Amino acid sequence: MAGAAAGERQSSTAAEASSPLRVAVLGFGTVGQSVVRILTERTELASELALVAIFNRNVARKRADWVAPSVTWTDDAAAVLTAKPDVIVETVGGVELPYGWVSAALAQGISVVTANKLLLAAHAPELLALAAASGARLRFEAAVAGGVPIIDAVRTGLAGDTFTRVVGILNGTCNYILSRMTGGDSMSDALGEAQRLGFAEADPTSDVDGHDAAAKLAVLVGVAFKRYIRTSEISTGSIRRIDAIDFRYAKRLGGTIRQISMAECDASGAVRAFVGPALVPDSSNYARNTGPQNLVTLTGRFGGNTTFSGQGAGGYPTAVAVVSDLVALARQTRSGAEPAWTPTSVSAAPMRPYYIRFSVKDRPGILASITVALARHGINVDAVLQESGFPKDHLPFVVTVEPCEATALAGAMREIDAEDFHAEPVLVMPVLPGE
Amino acid sequence: MAGAAAGERQSSTAAEASSPLRVAVLGFGTVGQSVVRILTERTELASELALVAIFNRNVARKRADWVAPSVTWTDDAAAVLTAKPDVIVETVGGVELPYGWVSAALAQGISVVTANKLLLAAHAPELLALAAASGARLRFEAAVAGGVPIIDAVRTGLAGDTFTRVVGILNGTCNYILSRMTGGDSMSDALGEAQRLGFAEADPTSDVDGHDAAAKLAVLVGVAFKRYIRTSEISTGSIRRIDAIDFRYAKRLGGTIRQISMAECDASGAVRAFVGPALVPDSSNYARNTGPQNLVTLTGRFGGNTTFSGQGAGGYPTAVAVVSDLVALARQTRSGAEPAWTPTSVSAAPMRPYYIRFSVKDRPGILASITVALARHGINVDAVLQESGFPKDHLPFVVTVEPCEATALAGAMREIDAEDFHAEPVLVMPVLPGE
Repeated sequence: MAGAAAGERQSSTAAEASSPLRVAVLGFGTVGQSVVRILTERTELASELALVAIFNRNVARKRADWVAPSVTWTDDAAAVLTAKPDVIVETVGGVELPYGWVSAALAQGISVVTANKLLLAAHAPELLALAAASGARLRFEAAVAGGVPIIDAVRTGLAGDTFTRVVGILNGTCNYILSRMTGGDSMSDALGEAQRLGFAEADPTSDVDGHDAAAKLAVLVGVAFKRYIRTSEISTGSIRRIDAIDFRYAKRLGGTIRQISMAECDASGAVRAFVGPALVPDSSNYARNTGPQNLVTLTGRFGGNTTFSGQGAGGYPTAVAVVSDLVALARQTRSGAEPAWTPTSVSAAPMRPYYIRFSVKDRPGILASITVALARHGINVDAVLQESGFPKDHLPFVVTVEPCEATALAGAMREIDAEDFHAEPVLVMPVLPGE
Repeated sequence: MAGAAAGERQSSTAAEASSPLRVAVLGFGTVGQSVVRILTERTELASELALVAIFNRNVARKRADWVAPSVTWTDDAAAVLTAKPDVIVETVGGVELPYGWVSAALAQGISVVTANKLLLAAHAPELLALAAASGARLRFEAAVAGGVPIIDAVRTGLAGDTFTRVVGILNGTCNYILSRMTGGDSMSDALGEAQRLGFAEADPTSDVDGHDAAAKLAVLVGVAFKRYIRTSEISTGSIRRIDAIDFRYAKRLGGTIRQISMAECDASGAVRAFVGPALVPDSSNYARNTGPQNLVTLTGRFGGNTTFSGQGAGGYPTAVAVVSDLVALARQTRSGAEPAWTPTSVSAAPMRPYYIRFSVKDRPGILASITVALARHGINVDAVLQESGFPKDHLPFVVTVEPCEATALAGAMREIDAEDFHAEPVLVMPVLPGE
């Protein structure tokens, strides 16, 4: 019998390996389109994930010629479920309509991947119970902090720990506005610029008053503490009240101002939560997080603080989170083993600008021989810097060069190293870009 | 037959649910002890993970009374494998001895969790092939960046993306030394301090010359690009050559110096790699990463940059990574569904210091009435700040208070808000700690 059972499992595994997960995407807006783009462009995912249907209202005006012709386009959400895909991706937004579709899918054993924080904040307990009852899976990496894989970190990468605290910058619009204000902009100018760039809605209430971040915090509280809290119970403050003077005071206090979402859970399971403007020290990750970036710090009982930052919104970053959830669902029924690593030779360092520091016994013509050697190897000088106050027989100066191949630079440096003007060996370092 | 197969699978699932993974820990040093501590203290993991054996040389001197009496202590590594645990945790270090144990385990279908970057850098292809052949799993979250769950992020949380680049600060010792030098310390003072604090070995060669980081980079290249590169082929530079003058030049260039590990993989699969000191802009995450912290940025083709930072070493952070791998192995044979979220009421914000900004029509006694109201609610004033140059009838000043309950502060603020000296409503913000 053991043999027969093993045989059954084996043939079932083989069947799974040959049939990809059938995916229906609900909503063909920015995120839905980016999901379909990734599924289309990453052809190596075809063995695991097969797009079968796209739902959108008035779907005719959405139909895109770069999508495989095998995909069904429909404006009938019920028909999508009737066709029994293995998983639906919900990127429509709103609460009540998606709740109907998602709960119907989970009840039928169809797994769901959603980017919808409001749906989860409103209905997570019912949805998780439906999934538990049917064996379907509910995944929602994209619902919080867009492309930053914070939910997976809690559930897998840091599963060895338990968490006492989660603090984050979960709303890129507010972070952009407050970053601009740190630089001297007024609130209204910063908000106007955020709207012009598409970071902020025409009605920014949900962002600036903290409702958007509060829904995300409720989802993080669920994931990190396994507690469900009502968004409406979270104490929220608006950033509308922040004035230029507050940035001056913040500076005197060694910090700046950010919209912060934070929650703590004590050993008894009591949850404290807050969303609103907060003073953050300049030395903290929060102060350093500028523009529309999101950032989350998890505090573990054993491992201390771990911080995650990246794109909190945008079609592709959010779609990466959605597709990551799909991949996880597909691999759940597979081995999930680390794939083999292809043996590969290493080339030299990536092309970079370089910092080259000389210490020389000064005499005329040194810079000329250096620049001539660099030019001979096709390397362009960017700048020459010399600090004052050093002795002539041990004079440090720096040459920076534009991005070049490490091998070309090594060739030039061999010639330069052979010169007799060095007081000590030359120091060469690549220059990294800002982020 | 379908029914019988389903029945087989169900009973097998039930059996799995009732029998935790049997774990043997090889090596009872700092990391091994921390792993056993977490398994012992997190009693809720007992249904998934059961510690059965601990191996160490001269194990008698290691035996600890806080470990469950059911655990076998042994100095015979072969006997550990003969007892057929489901998984071994390898925290011994070195290369050849662990290679023997780990390859023997994988060949027998025993899964392995290791924190050993040198083992992987030297033997990953053989070990992955052994695991693939036997169906055993090899996990190694702890091998790179300690408690920072970067490997899981690549494999799961960002699995929807593919990567072109990985850049990081993978050696906490070098980062600590260079952070101190930014503050004006000499290399030898900074290294001495790192040794005193236990961040640096008596022989710091492996850290400062980049060999430690290069092994970690080779593992990251494997995980992110599925390419195996030899550590010895990675171009490495030493930070020994960095001088105080380089920090002065770096500052003039708007940056500072860090030991950076970076690798790129192009569409053809060619890998470029570099480890050594690099100039990084002050505005970058690399510059901001100070002390012994690790930091890794992944660049995805679709999602752009995502950055992870946290404890790169230390018993507990590393052990969290090991236990996370164990949990992943245990849940691989289980549903792995998101657990239910317990409905929970939200208390107010966590206890924090607060920033309170007033704008008042100035007259004597205002500060007195504010401080009296705060004191009545048990709140201690920390500082009072007043910028000059504002009109008397709209005078802003700030009071900061020591950590207090939001409810106590709200009580005090209700009284203060009722006063007639306000030119505009008071702004109250919590103050966050630095990290």
